[in-house]
Amino acid sequence: MRQTKLKDIGEFSLISALQKLVESSRPNNLDPKFHLIASIGDDAAIWESPKSTQLLTTDTVVEGVHYNSINSRWDDIGWKAMTANLSDIAAMGGSPLYCVISLGLNPDSFTSDILSLYTGILEASNEYGCRVVGGDISRSVPEFVNIALFGYCSQKPLTRSSAQVGESIAVTGTVGGSLAGLKLLTNSEDKTFSALTKLERQDVLRAHIRPHSARIHEGRKLASTGVKAAIDISDGLYADLSRLCDASNVSAKVHQPLLPIDRSLKSLSKREQSLLALQSGEEYELIYTAPSSLVKQLNNSLLTSSTIIGEVIQQADQSVILLDENNIQSCLEVNGWDHFIKE
Amino acid sequence: MRQTKLKDIGEFSLISALQKLVESSRPNNLDPKFHLIASIGDDAAIWESPKSTQLLTTDTVVEGVHYNSINSRWDDIGWKAMTANLSDIAAMGGSPLYCVISLGLNPDSFTSDILSLYTGILEASNEYGCRVVGGDISRSVPEFVNIALFGYCSQKPLTRSSAQVGESIAVTGTVGGSLAGLKLLTNSEDKTFSALTKLERQDVLRAHIRPHSARIHEGRKLASTGVKAAIDISDGLYADLSRLCDASNVSAKVHQPLLPIDRSLKSLSKREQSLLALQSGEEYELIYTAPSSLVKQLNNSLLTSSTIIGEVIQQADQSVILLDENNIQSCLEVNGWDHFIKE
Repeated sequence: MRQTKLKDIGEFSLISALQKLVESSRPNNLDPKFHLIASIGDDAAIWESPKSTQLLTTDTVVEGVHYNSINSRWDDIGWKAMTANLSDIAAMGGSPLYCVISLGLNPDSFTSDILSLYTGILEASNEYGCRVVGGDISRSVPEFVNIALFGYCSQKPLTRSSAQVGESIAVTGTVGGSLAGLKLLTNSEDKTFSALTKLERQDVLRAHIRPHSARIHEGRKLASTGVKAAIDISDGLYADLSRLCDASNVSAKVHQPLLPIDRSLKSLSKREQSLLALQSGEEYELIYTAPSSLVKQLNNSLLTSSTIIGEVIQQADQSVILLDENNIQSCLEVNGWDHFIKE
Repeated sequence: MRQTKLKDIGEFSLISALQKLVESSRPNNLDPKFHLIASIGDDAAIWESPKSTQLLTTDTVVEGVHYNSINSRWDDIGWKAMTANLSDIAAMGGSPLYCVISLGLNPDSFTSDILSLYTGILEASNEYGCRVVGGDISRSVPEFVNIALFGYCSQKPLTRSSAQVGESIAVTGTVGGSLAGLKLLTNSEDKTFSALTKLERQDVLRAHIRPHSARIHEGRKLASTGVKAAIDISDGLYADLSRLCDASNVSAKVHQPLLPIDRSLKSLSKREQSLLALQSGEEYELIYTAPSSLVKQLNNSLLTSSTIIGEVIQQADQSVILLDENNIQSCLEVNGWDHFIKE
């Protein structure tokens, strides 16, 4: 029998196999004081500690996979690596606190570049009262940056698994820009974007290169007003909403015309806009579910307001059902990101 | 001016530059409930949480740097990656609790090998009530395994910075085996080890490939009986004791004849034994300082007993002064490990 390779099974089958392995393992003497509430399968692990609810998450960026050191500024790479972790804490309604940074570095790298990388990490972390408290340095080519971030929740954490049938689905901010920026970064002549003004091109490049910091304020606000389910957009609205639905055993209807498209993309065709909005990863906006009255009420107090894009329905064949402007099921083909299977 | 590269300044100058950068950064709104006690420059970060003292550490192993996937078993790689992190918690006198695992994986790797890697991680973590609660997977060639481990202390944590002049220096278990094993793994014909029996060769290979789990029990015992300073041996007894001395603003006298050499190395020359004992990294034994009466008393209750190898003295020109069997300063040239500077 031929042995299976990672590129045959893909990232998500591997995660599910590893999850089974972890769940079947039996740690000795696990301290019951720190009761585990959520682990693999959510944006961060959650446990109860005496007097607080605590969170732990981790995220890695690898040179040549997540960024290209030729066309990226080092402080931007650091900023984005930190933002990805902050966003996971935001998706739980938590506050970030302490992090450890592991770097895999090329001996031929310039010291000034690595200091610049760290400066970007610190810029993003300073904004939310998060502090670098340690780390690890190894030799590695390609280089990588791994961050593990510890945080806490003052209220019940948001999870992926608590969406309820009948709730509205909302998303903070706008989407689509990051993928447009990535495509332009890869090919500045990409004809899809020929109608964009210089300013619009700059906007989408910036959305990809230096995304706004994570929606920490918004996540905390959601949790404190009784929202229960959320996920951040790392791999694309479609892929991440599917994940939230799977974890909650529900499905979602999404009305394409309601998608809050990045305004720099308004000159593109509706189809192109929807594809970008649904597939764009590394947006770091929050998808959440709540009664529509609560979404409207929340929008008065969120720093970045949110848009209702659909509703939670009973579990169906598909996790996410896309509806076009005629309320007919759309035939868009939407792909997510898989680290091992080539598109 | 020519720009400095990492291979010019080395790992430890880089760490010190990054530490300065972090210390000069000012996070907004840092929550004072979680008061930071130790951060960069110790084995783990320590903070006070309401009702407990908490720890966070991280460690990475990179293919081709820390291990070679050709001559290593995957479960051994996982075991050792976890052991390195457990050892950092042991060095604080803490208990490990929850960890997140970040893998950088080759799409051409066999799924069964990655499951085996995870099995090794779980074997080491299960032993101490530590649970995998999440992680991250990326594509990367060479592959890497990063673990971030959260733990807690029931008593005042051990730190590197609290060694006192006049205290004895003790080390748990025996040392030297891991480096001997690494040398044999790299060159099974290495003449240094030609006198070793087959069993002795197996012993030192095992010390390198699958080190005993970290000294968690011992660390906790040390902290609970009033020991204040400790460090684990990751980079070699000499290098790590130097670090403890630097952090405590003291120096150390080490009596070479007192070094607890791995018994499988007894056929080697005294000089070779001392070199191995002082330079062998990834031993995961604990170096600690305490009044000699306390060391003797502790040895009645430690699962792995410890040996006094020297004493803490006032700060001198060198952090660690080696004395030979005639109590004369030894002229051994001892090297530590640096990720960027080639030996």
